[in-house]
Amino acid sequence: MSKQSLYIVKIGGNIINDKKLLSSFLSNFSRMEGLKILVHGGGKRATTMAKDLSLEPKMIGGRRVTDEANLEIVTMVYAGLLNKNMVAELQFNNCNAIGLSGADANCILAHKRIIKDIDYGFAGDVDAVNTEVIKLFLDNKMTPVFCAITHDKKGQLLNTNADTISSEIAKSLSNDYDVELIYCFEKNGVLEDVDHDNSVIEHINKERYEDLIQKKIIAEGMLPKLKNCFGALKNGVKKVIIGNPEIISNRNQKYTTLTL
Amino acid sequence: MSKQSLYIVKIGGNIINDKKLLSSFLSNFSRMEGLKILVHGGGKRATTMAKDLSLEPKMIGGRRVTDEANLEIVTMVYAGLLNKNMVAELQFNNCNAIGLSGADANCILAHKRIIKDIDYGFAGDVDAVNTEVIKLFLDNKMTPVFCAITHDKKGQLLNTNADTISSEIAKSLSNDYDVELIYCFEKNGVLEDVDHDNSVIEHINKERYEDLIQKKIIAEGMLPKLKNCFGALKNGVKKVIIGNPEIISNRNQKYTTLTL
Repeated sequence: MSKQSLYIVKIGGNIINDKKLLSSFLSNFSRMEGLKILVHGGGKRATTMAKDLSLEPKMIGGRRVTDEANLEIVTMVYAGLLNKNMVAELQFNNCNAIGLSGADANCILAHKRIIKDIDYGFAGDVDAVNTEVIKLFLDNKMTPVFCAITHDKKGQLLNTNADTISSEIAKSLSNDYDVELIYCFEKNGVLEDVDHDNSVIEHINKERYEDLIQKKIIAEGMLPKLKNCFGALKNGVKKVIIGNPEIISNRNQKYTTLTL
Repeated sequence: MSKQSLYIVKIGGNIINDKKLLSSFLSNFSRMEGLKILVHGGGKRATTMAKDLSLEPKMIGGRRVTDEANLEIVTMVYAGLLNKNMVAELQFNNCNAIGLSGADANCILAHKRIIKDIDYGFAGDVDAVNTEVIKLFLDNKMTPVFCAITHDKKGQLLNTNADTISSEIAKSLSNDYDVELIYCFEKNGVLEDVDHDNSVIEHINKERYEDLIQKKIIAEGMLPKLKNCFGALKNGVKKVIIGNPEIISNRNQKYTTLTL
């Protein structure tokens, strides 16, 4: 029996920061037919909130170091402000969204990142995705909207990378669905030349991926993103796409497709 | 056929403000057998947060007047910080909690309060409770945990009184369940003399209620609370109880029972 298709769409900070862009994205997302899940990152609101409260956000290697005060802020901003406003706007667009953190219905179990060289504080690494409950939501015509907060089932919330959450959910559900994982961000795809938005590399397979890393064309923030993508593909996800937010409604443009 | 029992428990600010009390409450709530729903108010964190951000919270008649900036704060604090931390702690206590605002899965539809004498801003008055989806959660062994944020299905989140949310959910589900609505707060019940915690009025029916209003024993914050209670009873709720948070696990103490 062929499996049902499931789209898992991740949007990052740059879309969330732009109210008009976000609104247009949510409207397009609502019109996507079939089963779908949205995962959203944080955006700069958590950073400005921290500043407004005179807290200094700490970043190491592109990741936020989460002390207790900053965990409170990301919990408020991601799980509260951003998640609920997106859900309300999706509901307005007749998409039956349900906003979730990993703690809700024990959807995403994680553990506090083990300290090696760097103490990331209350950062979570995903252990398990509760596929049964996510399937229940999907079967009942709900669209899960995940923020990047998980928990450890010991009462501790954990700040978790949204790209990782997307790929972990995608992998876990690939037994039950034909999963297409779509990463939407501010660029048109993986670029050959970061300064030229038209230099989209349209197809990357494992070989090309390693070549691009060697040539340092894939570097910095793109490195963990693509690592997540190939991890997903190796674990049953059918297709991974990287592009600007419009690709969810219009594929008549350049974007990057990843395959093994 | 007799209906299943359903407990709807509401906790207010004074329990939420006391970390140890909240923790003990959540542990007791987790051990309550049968179907249950938790509704929580806000607590003083939203007020301190507003102050930290140099916003002045406005109160009229015991209700927060919600401008746009204050709506953002209550959305962050109620739906994010408080709701997710409670859910995480309930999950630790093996209660399969799922945190919800009224926007999530369109659980609670409201409209922005119509301006008569006072403009309450983004305050919501409840129009409808989505009993189908709440029943789905309960049928699948989840415990809904509602914060006091609703939406209007036009993309607008609304700050909504938690007592009202509790009674509206209770009324809506009374066709399907034998509903017991339990209001937990800092006192032992409705008091004959506010200065004496032992002066609990153990039973109030409609007649006594009107008498107590006339004598001004029921006044201020108690007035809308008891109005909600009797509204619930008139609309099919089996039993309403008011007492301290311990009544969910120990009924060998004084508390107030309301009946028609």
